[in-house]
Amino acid sequence: SLLSSSESRIDQLETENAGEGCIYSSRYTHTHTHTHTHTAYLKPKVAFYTALTDAGTLGPYNTDITLKYSKVFTNIGNAYNPSTGFFTAPVKGVYNLQFTACGYLAGDTGVDVYKNNQRIMANWERNDNGVPEYFTNSLVLELTAGDEIHLVLPSGRSVYGDSNNRSTFSGSLLFTL
Amino acid sequence: SLLSSSESRIDQLETENAGEGCIYSSRYTHTHTHTHTHTAYLKPKVAFYTALTDAGTLGPYNTDITLKYSKVFTNIGNAYNPSTGFFTAPVKGVYNLQFTACGYLAGDTGVDVYKNNQRIMANWERNDNGVPEYFTNSLVLELTAGDEIHLVLPSGRSVYGDSNNRSTFSGSLLFTL
Amino acid sequence: SLLSSSESRIDQLETENAGEGCIYSSRYTHTHTHTHTHTAYLKPKVAFYTALTDAGTLGPYNTDITLKYSKVFTNIGNAYNPSTGFFTAPVKGVYNLQFTACGYLAGDTGVDVYKNNQRIMANWERNDNGVPEYFTNSLVLELTAGDEIHLVLPSGRSVYGDSNNRSTFSGSLLFTL
Repeated sequence: SLLSSSESRIDQLETENAGEGCIYSSRYTHTHTHTHTHTAYLKPKVAFYTALTDAGTLGPYNTDITLKYSKVFTNIGNAYNPSTGFFTAPVKGVYNLQFTACGYLAGDTGVDVYKNNQRIMANWERNDNGVPEYFTNSLVLELTAGDEIHLVLPSGRSVYGDSNNRSTFSGSLLFTL
Repeated sequence: SLLSSSESRIDQLETENAGEGCIYSSRYTHTHTHTHTHTAYLKPKVAFYTALTDAGTLGPYNTDITLKYSKVFTNIGNAYNPSTGFFTAPVKGVYNLQFTACGYLAGDTGVDVYKNNQRIMANWERNDNGVPEYFTNSLVLELTAGDEIHLVLPSGRSVYGDSNNRSTFSGSLLFTL
Repeated sequence: SLLSSSESRIDQLETENAGEGCIYSSRYTHTHTHTHTHTAYLKPKVAFYTALTDAGTLGPYNTDITLKYSKVFTNIGNAYNPSTGFFTAPVKGVYNLQFTACGYLAGDTGVDVYKNNQRIMANWERNDNGVPEYFTNSLVLELTAGDEIHLVLPSGRSVYGDSNNRSTFSGSLLFTL
């Protein structure tokens, strides 16, 4: 990278200066102590924002399916993978995650939240009157690097998405641990 | 951190070079003051939180109108302007924005989200039974400095606000880019 | 940018070193002290995420009661106290707080938000058809150290919680002030 190239050039310059060509230099005293610790500030930039689909109603199916939010508007850090629907924590930290599910024109609405293979939240709502219904929830989760979060459409439920982007899934890293 | 450390080392090298090549310099005394700027870490503080109005039901109207959330509880950085209803990004970065719309006592509820002149989200809900209905959504958006976000009440819809602060609009800067 | 500025300065140093040759420099004494203070970046880590209960429907009661979200999944900084239901700001700053209330199988749903002894938000929803109903809201609040936020179940309302974790309360520190 540009930065590491700069580092190498600075190393070289320091070497040159330390031994610099001064003839008859009887004394060269140099006291130089740097202690930079900025670990805490080096927060990776992780944030994503997606909407489900433009294809209308998804489901109901007779098995649970992972929801693949295919409209990716923001994906700084590429922690969300639209081909799997999984958000994978790149570092240990606390993450804020939220979703809104819209049901429309197709029976009861449901969205479950999974951490790795464990269901950690389940929501459903009646939808039988031909108008949209919504629910939203937020989670603030301590994740280790590699932990993944995904949303699931439970068997027998449906969820709706179109160009209005009502069914969303988003998140961000709050801080590392 | 790496960058600021490099900066320090370049400072040092420049200092050394400024004092070198000196013929017969019997003594070189150097007092060195650093002013470090860590642009990457100097995240501006940007956060706002507003509620719509105390005036009860707004709408329906026969045209779309921009919603001016007039009850400003938090506005660090003054990025939200209550006289226009616009949130304007002060710096390039990723922003978290969320709103809750409450409909009550006046036909269907609707709130659209605009980025600059483009509608990027639209939500509506049936409200015909004299009790409050709600929807909430969140967006995590990459914005450049000067991009603005505002919420719109679509033609024919209504939204409700009173001292209970059920219809809210809020947001914050997650990180700069 | 800072980086390209660094590049230019390294270029210049390399040029200087290539042409240097200090004759008779008898002494070079250099004392260099760095004092870095980055107080502004030392943001405390504060984030919590809770669900209400596994016990099913809470309420209705004939008085307001403080909701004690007893399922504590995240509590970095221990600012949330499950024995009181209070979130207490550890430092002056701006905090993001959000909750989702689910009503199910027991009359109208309600959740109010209090800052210290003042009610700053009130939401309620009809629930009379044996299916879950939801509302969600977010607040971005400027709090001083010691300010507390808690949620209240108003007299005559109910709220529902079970192992599905539909009724949640969470928050985090965005930045200090």
